[in-house]
Amino acid sequence: MPTQSTSPHLPFGENKNAPWYGMDILSVKQFSRTDLEYVFGVAHEMRGMVERVGTFDLLKGKILANLFYEPSTRTSSSFTAAMERLGGSVIPINEVKYSSVSKGESLPDTIRTLECYADVIVLRHPETGSAAIAAKAARKPIINAGDGVGEHPTQALLDLFTISEELGRLDGLTVTMLGDLKYGRTVHSLARLLTLFGARLNYVSPEILRMPKEVMEEVADKGIVQTEFGSLEKVLAETDVLYVTRVQKERFEDVADYEKVKGAYVIDPDVMKAAKSEMIVMHPLPRVGEISPDFDDDPRAAYFRQMEYGLYVRMALLAMVLGKA
Amino acid sequence: MPTQSTSPHLPFGENKNAPWYGMDILSVKQFSRTDLEYVFGVAHEMRGMVERVGTFDLLKGKILANLFYEPSTRTSSSFTAAMERLGGSVIPINEVKYSSVSKGESLPDTIRTLECYADVIVLRHPETGSAAIAAKAARKPIINAGDGVGEHPTQALLDLFTISEELGRLDGLTVTMLGDLKYGRTVHSLARLLTLFGARLNYVSPEILRMPKEVMEEVADKGIVQTEFGSLEKVLAETDVLYVTRVQKERFEDVADYEKVKGAYVIDPDVMKAAKSEMIVMHPLPRVGEISPDFDDDPRAAYFRQMEYGLYVRMALLAMVLGKA
Amino acid sequence: MPTQSTSPHLPFGENKNAPWYGMDILSVKQFSRTDLEYVFGVAHEMRGMVERVGTFDLLKGKILANLFYEPSTRTSSSFTAAMERLGGSVIPINEVKYSSVSKGESLPDTIRTLECYADVIVLRHPETGSAAIAAKAARKPIINAGDGVGEHPTQALLDLFTISEELGRLDGLTVTMLGDLKYGRTVHSLARLLTLFGARLNYVSPEILRMPKEVMEEVADKGIVQTEFGSLEKVLAETDVLYVTRVQKERFEDVADYEKVKGAYVIDPDVMKAAKSEMIVMHPLPRVGEISPDFDDDPRAAYFRQMEYGLYVRMALLAMVLGKA
Repeated sequence: MPTQSTSPHLPFGENKNAPWYGMDILSVKQFSRTDLEYVFGVAHEMRGMVERVGTFDLLKGKILANLFYEPSTRTSSSFTAAMERLGGSVIPINEVKYSSVSKGESLPDTIRTLECYADVIVLRHPETGSAAIAAKAARKPIINAGDGVGEHPTQALLDLFTISEELGRLDGLTVTMLGDLKYGRTVHSLARLLTLFGARLNYVSPEILRMPKEVMEEVADKGIVQTEFGSLEKVLAETDVLYVTRVQKERFEDVADYEKVKGAYVIDPDVMKAAKSEMIVMHPLPRVGEISPDFDDDPRAAYFRQMEYGLYVRMALLAMVLGKA
Repeated sequence: MPTQSTSPHLPFGENKNAPWYGMDILSVKQFSRTDLEYVFGVAHEMRGMVERVGTFDLLKGKILANLFYEPSTRTSSSFTAAMERLGGSVIPINEVKYSSVSKGESLPDTIRTLECYADVIVLRHPETGSAAIAAKAARKPIINAGDGVGEHPTQALLDLFTISEELGRLDGLTVTMLGDLKYGRTVHSLARLLTLFGARLNYVSPEILRMPKEVMEEVADKGIVQTEFGSLEKVLAETDVLYVTRVQKERFEDVADYEKVKGAYVIDPDVMKAAKSEMIVMHPLPRVGEISPDFDDDPRAAYFRQMEYGLYVRMALLAMVLGKA
Repeated sequence: MPTQSTSPHLPFGENKNAPWYGMDILSVKQFSRTDLEYVFGVAHEMRGMVERVGTFDLLKGKILANLFYEPSTRTSSSFTAAMERLGGSVIPINEVKYSSVSKGESLPDTIRTLECYADVIVLRHPETGSAAIAAKAARKPIINAGDGVGEHPTQALLDLFTISEELGRLDGLTVTMLGDLKYGRTVHSLARLLTLFGARLNYVSPEILRMPKEVMEEVADKGIVQTEFGSLEKVLAETDVLYVTRVQKERFEDVADYEKVKGAYVIDPDVMKAAKSEMIVMHPLPRVGEISPDFDDDPRAAYFRQMEYGLYVRMALLAMVLGKA
């Protein structure tokens, strides 16, 4: 039912009575606060079931086509595990670039073929807007697993679910985002989602990697307080959630500029002495040096648990769009 | 039991009492009219089961090795889905060219290794005759999923099954094949199969891409009327099945020749006004321009349903060779 | 529980009461004679179950992450089949080199992510010691499926299990190893394991591919008689197990040297006339010419059955580390 869920005029969450059955998951913009609470409620139940029984047959007999036009082992594995933990099966399609499917065939044709075989399609594609194109062609539900610099809604949902599960609440938190805030798709989505919960946002980044104007304006319109900083020390003590992203050397024209700033964006046990004991450190992974492995055993290090919460969110979404939650 | 099924002297269908258990599916030449009717009967039941329950455990506990020496997402996904919809499991082997299996190991050795793990092997291989070589080595059934310019029997069967399901009959149809009839493996196989049902065949192609002499002679020997045309308009009105294939620019020495003819082989709603309302348009997919997407919503556009019929035919064959149908 | 199983001071087999639950399988050095007998007992039961029912649900609901940093179709397929024959599911991760997981992410981070999704991880990695690094990071069991020139314990176990099943005993056998004994990881591991059973070992190889000094010294320390030969004829008649490996042309500086010796290391029906009727010929596969296909139908040719025994050993290990055997 692509019309309903992709329409900007009838966002997903506004029809409170609509079942999630057959819906596409294309963008975090589909989700109202009520929707998010519903997803997280289902995901929380999934967590409980996995902890108790590991796997159960909620989606037995259902088939997921896991269609990845670019490799992403983490996301692909997470969806595969989500489907398998619900008793369903997976058609893995990871090597699309070598395949005849990619030889000139349009994305809608590929989607219309795969929906002959599968009950739901997860799509990762390098081009922005691909997921919406796929959803328009499909009768079966499409879940966007990242389309270029566009959306990656399940990542945004798992980030928010992590906060909810770890801190027990989403309202009124102080969230500090650190590192590359310009190119980081995850921090843009998370900032937008947090506006629904009255957060206070701190942005700590090098000058050239500041949070984009359009994101800040959108967030400001919702009445959210945002403050920018060049270093972490002024805000770490008050932070409930520290969301770390990678500062890539390649973003800097002059390597000397990179060398100058990089140390300011590395988290280790020493830096974290200034933080509260009741807070969490998140990271979308993979990390390459921006969080020291020495910090991994600290209870505040939530980034591996974050991966696990991703499993539960994806289980919830699969069950929902297949009419089983 | 490769001896029996690969022997030209004892074709599969001649032993009416033989079970299909353990048989190889190597060539459409194995199939008599009675065999085809049997396969299509089972495939029709599979269609009914999938429409009613989606998936069922007919092959629970059985394992398919899906061995693709060249990528073919469509065929590979279709067999994977077929096995999964029957409750069975799949060992996907898609990256053979990078693997040690391909480093000098003979195909028979690879097959004899894989049959230690699996109950049935689907093989796609670039070299003609590979499936027969594999079947000779194997104790477990081999299903040929395309061996070079050789056979691709499940494609031929799904084409015929599509006609059977869509039009409700196979006898006495007027079938028009359009486009590249010289290199198109699918049209050669379909023409041969249709001789069993007394069809009338029209061939519409550029001069340089005409149906090969040897196919035409073989078909003529069965008493089938074949007529060649340079354009569609003379035959479209009487056509029950229009089978479209792609005319590739690369086939033409002079691009100007291609530009001159290409328009004559494009199907769109306007062209289709001249056709009957009770007929179907088929295409093996992928298509690249030879059928306008504007025609996709026409009830006569059967090419995506054709993909779905492929699922049912492959389910039927898997169940049959594993002794469950 | 990596500490226990990777510790050189508390080898696996010394704690007789310890369950195998949660253990890593990293090296053949973990296994005492009693351990081996236990593994082979379970593997023998697996064989019986597969022969009777094909597949059963011992590991239903369990998920294996099959993580291959380098391709190995044979080993990967074998683990996939092992998990599927036990009713479990697999996350196939074969294309690591193209994936973001490999872009700078450390192995421990990848492992900690995947264990969020899976219950057990099979790891193939080009670098020696990788499996131990993975096991140190992981809370879930790791099974080493080959780490560079390091260990490949399941290959060594399946070799020994093959002998046990084929000859009905492991004690006091005369085992002749033929071919490249210098670089062949499998013969080094097998020689070490056989010291537990009082074997008599013959090494037949070209001068430049002799069994390494360190392996011979280790084996000699256990009181095992080892004798080196330049050709097979002197020892074939007394041999219970002939283990053939490939002599690669690339190992020779001068191709003429290779051409001179290669004939001495090829097994065919004629050569085998000098062997006993109650003995077996093994090979880790793939083979490329060192055993003539003409010998394949001889009952003594055990190399394809060897692949099948590998399935049972891997089923046993998966069941054991997941607490089900």
